[in-house]
Amino acid sequence: MSNKRGGIMERLDNGDVVIGDGGFVFALEKRGYVKAGPWTPEAVVEYPEAVKQLHREFLRAGSDVMQAFTYYASEDKLSNRGNTASQKFGCTAINTAACRIAREVAQEGDALFLGGVCQTPTYLSGGDKASIQAIFRGQMQTFKAEGADLVLCEYFEHVEEAEWAIEVGLETGLPVACTMCIGPQGDMHGNSAGDCAVRMARAGAKLVGVNCHFDPFVTLEAIKLMKAGLERENLKAYLMCQPVAYMTPDAEKQGCIDLPEFPLAMESRLCTRWDMHRFARAAYDLGVRYIGGCCGFEAYHIRAIAEELAAERGRFPAGSEKHIAWGGGMKMSTKPWIRARSGRDYWENLNPASGRPYSAAMSRPDNWGVTRGSEMLVQHAHETTEEEDNRVKQLGQQMRKK
Amino acid sequence: MSNKRGGIMERLDNGDVVIGDGGFVFALEKRGYVKAGPWTPEAVVEYPEAVKQLHREFLRAGSDVMQAFTYYASEDKLSNRGNTASQKFGCTAINTAACRIAREVAQEGDALFLGGVCQTPTYLSGGDKASIQAIFRGQMQTFKAEGADLVLCEYFEHVEEAEWAIEVGLETGLPVACTMCIGPQGDMHGNSAGDCAVRMARAGAKLVGVNCHFDPFVTLEAIKLMKAGLERENLKAYLMCQPVAYMTPDAEKQGCIDLPEFPLAMESRLCTRWDMHRFARAAYDLGVRYIGGCCGFEAYHIRAIAEELAAERGRFPAGSEKHIAWGGGMKMSTKPWIRARSGRDYWENLNPASGRPYSAAMSRPDNWGVTRGSEMLVQHAHETTEEEDNRVKQLGQQMRKK
Amino acid sequence: MSNKRGGIMERLDNGDVVIGDGGFVFALEKRGYVKAGPWTPEAVVEYPEAVKQLHREFLRAGSDVMQAFTYYASEDKLSNRGNTASQKFGCTAINTAACRIAREVAQEGDALFLGGVCQTPTYLSGGDKASIQAIFRGQMQTFKAEGADLVLCEYFEHVEEAEWAIEVGLETGLPVACTMCIGPQGDMHGNSAGDCAVRMARAGAKLVGVNCHFDPFVTLEAIKLMKAGLERENLKAYLMCQPVAYMTPDAEKQGCIDLPEFPLAMESRLCTRWDMHRFARAAYDLGVRYIGGCCGFEAYHIRAIAEELAAERGRFPAGSEKHIAWGGGMKMSTKPWIRARSGRDYWENLNPASGRPYSAAMSRPDNWGVTRGSEMLVQHAHETTEEEDNRVKQLGQQMRKK
Amino acid sequence: MSNKRGGIMERLDNGDVVIGDGGFVFALEKRGYVKAGPWTPEAVVEYPEAVKQLHREFLRAGSDVMQAFTYYASEDKLSNRGNTASQKFGCTAINTAACRIAREVAQEGDALFLGGVCQTPTYLSGGDKASIQAIFRGQMQTFKAEGADLVLCEYFEHVEEAEWAIEVGLETGLPVACTMCIGPQGDMHGNSAGDCAVRMARAGAKLVGVNCHFDPFVTLEAIKLMKAGLERENLKAYLMCQPVAYMTPDAEKQGCIDLPEFPLAMESRLCTRWDMHRFARAAYDLGVRYIGGCCGFEAYHIRAIAEELAAERGRFPAGSEKHIAWGGGMKMSTKPWIRARSGRDYWENLNPASGRPYSAAMSRPDNWGVTRGSEMLVQHAHETTEEEDNRVKQLGQQMRKK
Repeated sequence: MSNKRGGIMERLDNGDVVIGDGGFVFALEKRGYVKAGPWTPEAVVEYPEAVKQLHREFLRAGSDVMQAFTYYASEDKLSNRGNTASQKFGCTAINTAACRIAREVAQEGDALFLGGVCQTPTYLSGGDKASIQAIFRGQMQTFKAEGADLVLCEYFEHVEEAEWAIEVGLETGLPVACTMCIGPQGDMHGNSAGDCAVRMARAGAKLVGVNCHFDPFVTLEAIKLMKAGLERENLKAYLMCQPVAYMTPDAEKQGCIDLPEFPLAMESRLCTRWDMHRFARAAYDLGVRYIGGCCGFEAYHIRAIAEELAAERGRFPAGSEKHIAWGGGMKMSTKPWIRARSGRDYWENLNPASGRPYSAAMSRPDNWGVTRGSEMLVQHAHETTEEEDNRVKQLGQQMRKK
Repeated sequence: MSNKRGGIMERLDNGDVVIGDGGFVFALEKRGYVKAGPWTPEAVVEYPEAVKQLHREFLRAGSDVMQAFTYYASEDKLSNRGNTASQKFGCTAINTAACRIAREVAQEGDALFLGGVCQTPTYLSGGDKASIQAIFRGQMQTFKAEGADLVLCEYFEHVEEAEWAIEVGLETGLPVACTMCIGPQGDMHGNSAGDCAVRMARAGAKLVGVNCHFDPFVTLEAIKLMKAGLERENLKAYLMCQPVAYMTPDAEKQGCIDLPEFPLAMESRLCTRWDMHRFARAAYDLGVRYIGGCCGFEAYHIRAIAEELAAERGRFPAGSEKHIAWGGGMKMSTKPWIRARSGRDYWENLNPASGRPYSAAMSRPDNWGVTRGSEMLVQHAHETTEEEDNRVKQLGQQMRKK
Repeated sequence: MSNKRGGIMERLDNGDVVIGDGGFVFALEKRGYVKAGPWTPEAVVEYPEAVKQLHREFLRAGSDVMQAFTYYASEDKLSNRGNTASQKFGCTAINTAACRIAREVAQEGDALFLGGVCQTPTYLSGGDKASIQAIFRGQMQTFKAEGADLVLCEYFEHVEEAEWAIEVGLETGLPVACTMCIGPQGDMHGNSAGDCAVRMARAGAKLVGVNCHFDPFVTLEAIKLMKAGLERENLKAYLMCQPVAYMTPDAEKQGCIDLPEFPLAMESRLCTRWDMHRFARAAYDLGVRYIGGCCGFEAYHIRAIAEELAAERGRFPAGSEKHIAWGGGMKMSTKPWIRARSGRDYWENLNPASGRPYSAAMSRPDNWGVTRGSEMLVQHAHETTEEEDNRVKQLGQQMRKK
Repeated sequence: MSNKRGGIMERLDNGDVVIGDGGFVFALEKRGYVKAGPWTPEAVVEYPEAVKQLHREFLRAGSDVMQAFTYYASEDKLSNRGNTASQKFGCTAINTAACRIAREVAQEGDALFLGGVCQTPTYLSGGDKASIQAIFRGQMQTFKAEGADLVLCEYFEHVEEAEWAIEVGLETGLPVACTMCIGPQGDMHGNSAGDCAVRMARAGAKLVGVNCHFDPFVTLEAIKLMKAGLERENLKAYLMCQPVAYMTPDAEKQGCIDLPEFPLAMESRLCTRWDMHRFARAAYDLGVRYIGGCCGFEAYHIRAIAEELAAERGRFPAGSEKHIAWGGGMKMSTKPWIRARSGRDYWENLNPASGRPYSAAMSRPDNWGVTRGSEMLVQHAHETTEEEDNRVKQLGQQMRKK
């Protein structure tokens, strides 16, 4: 695609701050188009208008890159544990449809579009490099064919698999970005966040960083370590950051997916737009130049990032037509006490209450400590059996007792 | 409109439980199409596709009634405190467009559509009955002309204004429903919740109840008092309930708008789908037969109501295609500890953490105690002046110190 | 006893505010001299120096009345469920020793001393009036013989038993005070707080009010209702208030004993001295003229009451020698940031954190709903059997699941 | 002193776990005998019976070592910022009286007694080594003369000052123990916890560890680092641990004194006896062999330690006469739901609620970052001036705004 600001590398090299989009699986699950559990994106074929509308909201909010909804659209995931999406629609059709929707909306603004791959059930099950790269290659050829501006390898818990994905990404000739879903404690194989960044950059990623699994502020702690790793090794790569929009101070190594509320009771952890102002400023100050979001991020979170960085970027998003910075719209309320709530001082210093006096501030995460190679991570095409179901539930109860 | 299950009164008289929809202003504000502060619905003209998409999500989630997005679409509100919507689009055009969108989507399913009016700035400013009824009449004539199935008078803080609205609603010959935004403490003029119900029913409303301002469980406390009032006076009216999807145990007489987090930092109070299961069951058991939502309710909250009452209603919503009751989809997760989270026992007993250790569970509400007739409630067409702005901010600070 | 300020009625009639003492069973349990569970006061015989020291702390803190440690020193309680205190020491010896200690310390200052009775296991077990009054009479004759200045009937859950106690108290010819352990919801037989006050006053109590079971602020809600009841019936009685020093906003009808933390994990609910300033002021403003404490109150809480009311009482307590009002002593700290914490503004506006991010703000109380006459309240002299133990534990688990 | 179990080193060398006592300044402040702010121990002269009673409570609870109440009894502290204790009583008289009380109570059981010194205002003010050691020497000569069994150098924020104290302690010929008030972040001069342990051991301390400033669990994190430091350097010293009894997960480098609740609103952070069971077990498992407490620890906390380690120590404390392990006394309650609360399962798994819905779980600590040499740490004999007072308050408000 051609556009005013140029491709991703030109934008970054010109000093622009690139704004990403938010999390499609969570947003579309709430709207009724994605199933919680498998989280696969066959909605691009089934309900393309709903997907397109979500892209448009992010575009309007300030996103510079439309991320095609290809998350988990790998052959093995689309047919895992009773998922029939692969059989019904086919992996290629899904990746193609996703790219076309993203491209169409990107062209409505001055935006780019990307195609992304992520960690595979095959890797968790112990599959070999060739078969895993074949999965990535299938998706990435579609991205290339549909004219993607860049390729994103994201949501990797093991830097090894991330490297394999980057390798395949480079085959497309497009710029490759890579983000792992890790926190300050590093990847599941014990590689530090700094070492992960170094390995991603050495593998050829032009942008490296973190997405998903941790809240904006914990994520920036990991990015700090990545930045230090790159500096230590004199490597040059842009930093990229797309955290979840849920507060996770209590998450441990595996992030928010270990918290008992994940994924169907995360509401009380949801970030406000004011959290995002703070995040955008801190990310910018740290040197992050691709700032977006993952699960839980909706258009108004992205708009808050775009508004916080409006001076640096030299523009407000289209969506600011319907938003006055720092609650300025409150001056139009009919109630005087709400009119009193306009202004940065008020919102910036508010510690929002939970409204849940029977709930705690933090939860103890599940700590199963299983990773690639563990028997319980071996995936299969048939549905989870009753025996398997009973077994994990018993284990879960034992864990929580501790 | 004609449809399989008949009009609103036939459905109710046949013993069906009617499911409403969720809150348009909050949802569309987050998506970027409504401005927080004035909260007026000119998006129906500006961004009809975005409004239509939201209706479709609720339809798919199980809503039986598409509520045309006419909230605050009264002449005086569309031109209050610098709002230019009236001037740009006109009140009638907005009400007409809203009805047509709602009707179109309703016809895609077996749903009805309604047009609604709500409390007016003119009433708060002390305007007389005739001028206020003229405002309602303008909107309602549009609803009638566009073929609405019923008229809703909602979001009234004073039962007197609700009665005036019902009177005008009856002129249309359509069934009239009426809900007030009050809690167990009654209306702003000191009328008890029970007396409010009695007066709404006597004025001619076929459905009476509560919408907005309070969480599902506090709202049901008010409905209980309304039910008792109706029984005491031997009046027959169906009960209707559309609460906010935010936990508000700390709200006082004026509800969630008094809480310091309102409206731009309510996230941590957001209800989960499991809260809605509990709400739907409790509302049903209390005898409520029109169960929907207001601010904060999104499609998945409505779907939870429809799933909880699937046996009573004899049907699941279309959206259950993408949702397995009580987290059943978790069985398709790649992670064993998440597979362990399928099942009602798990989700029903979870007290979700806030992830905010520096926040409290409750806030002290602003208690300005101003109501109809107070000078500070007099509205005007020009923008809020700097002097007015300073004054409310000073008062706000004094209140919060107490 | 003769003393400068006169007897209890003279003091009250002269307009003095009488300050009570704090809770002996909780304080001495923590110090190692009272057993949690039976909570009986045989320490007066076993460890008189420890009891005397606690009295002295309260005297020094400003208490005007030494309450002899006769709580639960009734024959039936001293031999209930395996308690051997009655057999070892005898009921009369315990009551006598308690009075002598209290009298001795009272004489060290210008203080009075009282003997108290409280609700009996016999009443809970359904015993008749004569046998219950005989129990009270035994204790009260000792109080009279030892020269008590007044008799206190306290900690009654049923106003009927309170009346029976007052009747016996009047036989002594001493002034009789009576406080029930009830909250705004009234007594266990469904009598309102207002009616309870009326019945206590009509029975002959010169002071009526509330002790134990609820925090200072909930207790004052009950006192408000009692005051209204007395005014309604044109009855004159002084108001008396001795709440627990634990925050109990979540307690229901039976108060803090229903909360899951009771009695061995109440620490995080403990009131600060600043809470007591607020309590003392509110109690005074409501017209309460005997202000003291119950479980959890230690000397510094009583001192805070005495300091808050120093102007009204015309004197500071002896203990203020070691205390500068509102944190004034902080000016002597070696650390500058602690020196910055002197002054009322700082402490009055502080919302103290719990330091427990895995804990909630409130608990759901046990709601067994058993009262006088319930089989499970029948007491016996032998130890709780294993069968009984298993049964209550099963019931407890069922309750908590709800 | 001679006694059955021998001196401190014999006990430790024989494998016994030595139990310390709790915090005198906080306990006696609440009882009315110590002034908050200066926190000096002249009560040993003024109110010896009150001090003796507190020693007896700890002895009865299981303490093996009576710690003479000589905390802050250094010449410079007794005359700092308007303190008149030095002038009235004299430093030597105070240290002597404290030793005699401790010795007397120790002899009532099979206990030892120690004298302790702690950090000096002179060090914070930048005084030289000779003058600071002279201060320590004065106190320690008294300890020796009064027959102390060991010398404790405690509550040091800078390991340099701790080394100077140990040097003087060794002059007495008694065994020297040394604990610093530091957490896992190390001392105020940037020395790591591990290095501090190494330096204390090299200076000649037979026991090294941590006291005060952090909760039991944070303290054990620091002890872990100390243990690793000692092992790294092949040094042998016993580990000693006397934390505060307040939960401080939010404390930073300087510990609980930086928290806004310190020192007069710490109640809601107070540990339960069940926290102490957990602490005792974790400390024992880590290899700590001198386990006691500091501020906030009362007799029942020490008793919980003694009960948790009863099997390892081969004895229960005297105070267990009035305590049945794990709430066993609840079986004697008159109420069935409280009888249901006997047993380890119940209390061990309880997360106690705060009862404070308007409070958060954590506070942001003051972070003044001043240490030895800072102008604001220079002490003086006259009272804090009004100008100084205003200055620290202004600074405090600025800090808290951030």
